[in-house]
Amino acid sequence: MSIEAEQLHQQSIIIDGLIIAKWNRELFEDMRKGGLTAANCTVSVWEGFQNTVNNIVAMNQLIEANNDLVSKVKCTADIHQAKSDGKTGIFLGFQNAHAFEDQIGYVQIFKDLGVGIVQMCYNTQNLVGTGCYERDGGLSGFGHEIVAEMNRVGIMCDLSHVGSKTSQEVILASKKPVCYSHCLPSGLKDHPRNKSDEELKFIADHGGFIGVTMFAPFLKNGINSTIDDYVEAIAYIVNIAGSDQVGIGTDFTQGHGQEFFEWLTHDKGYARRLTNFGKIVNPEGIRTVGEFPNLTEALLRKGLSATVVEKIMGKNWVNILAEVWGE
Amino acid sequence: MSIEAEQLHQQSIIIDGLIIAKWNRELFEDMRKGGLTAANCTVSVWEGFQNTVNNIVAMNQLIEANNDLVSKVKCTADIHQAKSDGKTGIFLGFQNAHAFEDQIGYVQIFKDLGVGIVQMCYNTQNLVGTGCYERDGGLSGFGHEIVAEMNRVGIMCDLSHVGSKTSQEVILASKKPVCYSHCLPSGLKDHPRNKSDEELKFIADHGGFIGVTMFAPFLKNGINSTIDDYVEAIAYIVNIAGSDQVGIGTDFTQGHGQEFFEWLTHDKGYARRLTNFGKIVNPEGIRTVGEFPNLTEALLRKGLSATVVEKIMGKNWVNILAEVWGE
Repeated sequence: MSIEAEQLHQQSIIIDGLIIAKWNRELFEDMRKGGLTAANCTVSVWEGFQNTVNNIVAMNQLIEANNDLVSKVKCTADIHQAKSDGKTGIFLGFQNAHAFEDQIGYVQIFKDLGVGIVQMCYNTQNLVGTGCYERDGGLSGFGHEIVAEMNRVGIMCDLSHVGSKTSQEVILASKKPVCYSHCLPSGLKDHPRNKSDEELKFIADHGGFIGVTMFAPFLKNGINSTIDDYVEAIAYIVNIAGSDQVGIGTDFTQGHGQEFFEWLTHDKGYARRLTNFGKIVNPEGIRTVGEFPNLTEALLRKGLSATVVEKIMGKNWVNILAEVWGE
Repeated sequence: MSIEAEQLHQQSIIIDGLIIAKWNRELFEDMRKGGLTAANCTVSVWEGFQNTVNNIVAMNQLIEANNDLVSKVKCTADIHQAKSDGKTGIFLGFQNAHAFEDQIGYVQIFKDLGVGIVQMCYNTQNLVGTGCYERDGGLSGFGHEIVAEMNRVGIMCDLSHVGSKTSQEVILASKKPVCYSHCLPSGLKDHPRNKSDEELKFIADHGGFIGVTMFAPFLKNGINSTIDDYVEAIAYIVNIAGSDQVGIGTDFTQGHGQEFFEWLTHDKGYARRLTNFGKIVNPEGIRTVGEFPNLTEALLRKGLSATVVEKIMGKNWVNILAEVWGE
């Protein structure tokens, strides 16, 4: 690695907008190795209210037991603190508003527990709207109430796995910026989970944010992809959305086995199968969280300036989170 | 009342396809006074799984405490038994599939607890589809799985408060007859809850069933309606669907106060207001459950034959329930 890349990575705030790894000390060690300043860590997908609270309890205990490596993030000041302490900040996120169940009041409850970002739907229909793997009837009346409450308490609306129609209506309904925390452009590969140029432009034009994932099945070269394919996708999106509203959202699933993917790819975790990714291998060069510095280097190699790379690697995420969290 | 009407009412099986009254001994006494053989009694609207089970516990205890007046119905043989015992049979129904939550397995659980009929949605969107008071995206993938499971275990799909698109797709998806347990024709009064001639014909053509309600705000003459306006609506629907697939579904709310209607008319029981009925007065002549014999008389007065009146007052419901319940 070049000294320039190494120095830039070390001095920058590095944010991963979406990790859904197996939470354990080994992963936290790899986060430190990768120089990660903070990450949106998924603690709910198919779980209802109580099981989600239980997941948060487990995460709290894990953070406490490994407080030499990680700390909990509830505001962007906590991110800066993590940076100066040489730790990785963990902020909690959901990939499904299902955990709110039918209670608008649960939005505040989860904000108080440290949840900073919630995806409105995961792949299928819930009380709020519909995910990207079935016909999408749009944002429901209850969904409008949930968006307003998320705006009020300061939880960011994430639309990555949300259907196109629901996404558009959330973008229009939200009074605060929303995001695709982890997505890829369908301009490079057509897939129900990827976003069209129009969709990327629409969210950016409305002040929203795009975290770019590297999930190989959605990349042009599939599981043969390298970190340069990932960088190509980032550059593609910067070209559409500009360099201030784009960041990283890897979707690292490090440490999980087949059982976990079976759970993810069935509706509600057990019902009909929604998709089948086949073999999942991260792009060469960024197979593990610990290889995060390679991404800074690859972005520089692509010709992006140090200033832009620093923004993409984390600064942009911090700015948008500060805005949504009302700081 | 004519002797003919009185005799016909007394000898017939009288079924009310939808009651959502305040469950207590006073109501059960009125059911006996009205000569009601059995009724679909709502035990869930906005409640989730556990609160619905709690409602069933309460209903079981109430039935047991008043077993001189009522008995529990789990099959049509229980209806015939209630008739010969001079009691009113109580079969349990939901007005919302919300109580199934995200568990297909809960369908069998509730069947085992005595639930014979479940409305897919109540006014708004749930995991299954969308109700009739908001934009309707149709039956979800999970909804298809729920319909198949209801078919398998023998719970009837009710579509009264369901949106037009979801209703149509349930009618097509279900392998067993489905129903509007309590509806009125929009041909007589235009209202989001009323069904068009096309909708009524569509369900009938697919072997489905229509229970006719008398809910005054949806009748042509509103709260000034009489039992003859109710009979007019029944005759209107018989004219479209024939005399074998039509029955009664009053929607009696007897004993409930304003608080209950506030709960019903807000999404989830507390969120945004969906509708406002204003003053609710049942049609003159059938203001209370105890006045049920007047309906038999009014149908005869309208010129329907005794054979047809007997079918509409209950025989048709028993036949369709036997089919759906797999007897």
